[in-house]
Amino acid sequence: MNKLGVPNDEFYMKIALRLAKKGLGFVNSNPPVGAVIVKGGNIIGKGYHTRFGALHAEREALLDAKKNGFDVSGATMYVTLEPCDHYGKTPPCTDAIIESGIKRVVIAAKDPNPVSGDGIKKLMKNGIEVKVGVLENEAKEVAKFFFKYVTTGLPYVTLKYASTLDGKIADKIANSKWITQELRSEVHKLRSIHKAVLIGAETVLKDNPMLNVRLPKRKFRNPDVVVLDENGRVLKRIISDTDKFELFNPDYQRRVIIFSSKHYQNVELPEYVKVKTPESLSVENILKELAREGIDSVLIEGGASVFSQFLPYADEIYGFYATKIFGKGKSIFQHLSIPIEESEIPFEIQKIRIAKNRKELMVVMRKCSQELSSMYVKDTSMVKG
Amino acid sequence: MNKLGVPNDEFYMKIALRLAKKGLGFVNSNPPVGAVIVKGGNIIGKGYHTRFGALHAEREALLDAKKNGFDVSGATMYVTLEPCDHYGKTPPCTDAIIESGIKRVVIAAKDPNPVSGDGIKKLMKNGIEVKVGVLENEAKEVAKFFFKYVTTGLPYVTLKYASTLDGKIADKIANSKWITQELRSEVHKLRSIHKAVLIGAETVLKDNPMLNVRLPKRKFRNPDVVVLDENGRVLKRIISDTDKFELFNPDYQRRVIIFSSKHYQNVELPEYVKVKTPESLSVENILKELAREGIDSVLIEGGASVFSQFLPYADEIYGFYATKIFGKGKSIFQHLSIPIEESEIPFEIQKIRIAKNRKELMVVMRKCSQELSSMYVKDTSMVKG
Repeated sequence: MNKLGVPNDEFYMKIALRLAKKGLGFVNSNPPVGAVIVKGGNIIGKGYHTRFGALHAEREALLDAKKNGFDVSGATMYVTLEPCDHYGKTPPCTDAIIESGIKRVVIAAKDPNPVSGDGIKKLMKNGIEVKVGVLENEAKEVAKFFFKYVTTGLPYVTLKYASTLDGKIADKIANSKWITQELRSEVHKLRSIHKAVLIGAETVLKDNPMLNVRLPKRKFRNPDVVVLDENGRVLKRIISDTDKFELFNPDYQRRVIIFSSKHYQNVELPEYVKVKTPESLSVENILKELAREGIDSVLIEGGASVFSQFLPYADEIYGFYATKIFGKGKSIFQHLSIPIEESEIPFEIQKIRIAKNRKELMVVMRKCSQELSSMYVKDTSMVKG
Repeated sequence: MNKLGVPNDEFYMKIALRLAKKGLGFVNSNPPVGAVIVKGGNIIGKGYHTRFGALHAEREALLDAKKNGFDVSGATMYVTLEPCDHYGKTPPCTDAIIESGIKRVVIAAKDPNPVSGDGIKKLMKNGIEVKVGVLENEAKEVAKFFFKYVTTGLPYVTLKYASTLDGKIADKIANSKWITQELRSEVHKLRSIHKAVLIGAETVLKDNPMLNVRLPKRKFRNPDVVVLDENGRVLKRIISDTDKFELFNPDYQRRVIIFSSKHYQNVELPEYVKVKTPESLSVENILKELAREGIDSVLIEGGASVFSQFLPYADEIYGFYATKIFGKGKSIFQHLSIPIEESEIPFEIQKIRIAKNRKELMVVMRKCSQELSSMYVKDTSMVKG
């Protein structure tokens, strides 16, 4: 709305952004995108990218208008990301827009993926009025996984720990009920939007975690599970105990990717389990391998050794603190040893939430933007699906 | 104000509470008290207890009205704590109120100190209308040090730590600049309202801290300093190096109390330094000794050993976290070893503050009230000054 209460471009873009968010967790490694078609001040079509491989938001909105009997010629389309101009899993959205007779397209953010082609140029060439940059930051935020993925060739990395006030973590994460109860649903929301979660072998063996999403009354997709099994301890155990591991429960309908330095050829694994034995098990190499698997976002769930290794690669940190104290015990990042002078991490507190019981606290920290560019390795060979 | 915008009892009591707060840090071990005299809807007198030993708020307000040429007969007095009815450092406030001709007295909270006498009864006996309980909780909050002190015979204990995200504290608290910069003024405010700060010998020797208040453009009093010097290490060092210790700098105009198991008779100490060698150096005994010295509130400033010892006695915890990580290092409460099942502390998060730089976080936690009563040892032998 502008000052006179008349809907303006931002007003409609906000609706498109809200639609885009509905795709979170279902579209990876595509971006979540929303689109709204407006004619004479009325919204005549709405759509969003619902799942990987399905129609793009623009086509969904055009179909919606058609289904409702509206003629879109002369209308304006609001879309949260630049329409694609290439043949991927679906034909170019630009073609559909041009054919439809839409006269004006308002775009929040340019598509950072060179593979997508120059949609803006194509639209303009065809006499369509294009405006770019309306709620650009908000659009980049909604599609932050995609933006990092296509500009760096690495997945977006979120590190999540649950600790006592004195920075201690539980030996078993299944027992992490002890640490956060009320804020537990925040963890499940995080899982539901990431393409994968990652844990260490120690955690699998000690804890036998499910790592699935438990959100009542909500549609979701379970994330893939990545296991860092450097010495093949999990693989070795699988030989005798496959059924005992919740990890391999087929009910969760997900992939399991195990990184190991050795592979036991005699292990018979279900088809949704993949063992990877790259030459180097460095964090960077693992992240690159994950990107190759179409994983645009990974939630690091522990334990201490994994936290310590992945901290330098984290884009976001979710710290869950409970009003508990251990004193002695396992520290969140105990495998690191950082001198005071270098202890400041390039993160800013972005959001905070106190549980209703007033005994739990969530602190969301984001890597400062100036640090991002220097950190990321440029690699724009990714393909939009 | 009531719903019609007409000032009511709460309206005037709020003003009295605001006045009371001005005494914080100056009146200990007396309570901070504020008073307002209202006649025909106008405030004709205001006062507060300005410093230990000075006039009480009620007498200040009566004097203020007189000075301004007002006749208080028939007026209403709002006072945050029940007027005293005994001869302490000043004569009973009840007498002054009765003599003044004030017709109605509104009181926020009853005085928990039996020594103060039954002021309410005395006023009523003399035909004054009395109303009790207006903003009672707020009044108890302002005078929380006093309420704990007189009902338990122990000082109010605030524990303050500054740590990294992973619960690590610095080896030197003078260096704690490294941990909190923007929120540093909150620490100085805490110091300015507590009667004393307490630190361990280790911190004195390693760190030579000033422990004074640094608040630009504000009147304040430096808190007394209590040193836990179990093995007499600080005392031993004093023999050769008195001048080298900031602790004994006379400019800070404060007492220094050293708790030790041994005393070196050949140590010549300035008159504001007191060495105490009680039979037991248990925390409870130390707190009782401090109460006997008129210390109604103590801020525990570390290090790890002191934090670990005083945690069970804390009424409030101020946790300052910075977006820093040490990995290995000294933990806040590393001298404790609490199993998971018992790790929950009876504290609730009461307040949170993020620094403007978004790199620091203050978490204020208060002991849950149900736990308080069982925790406190009843001892009402305290005397209001």
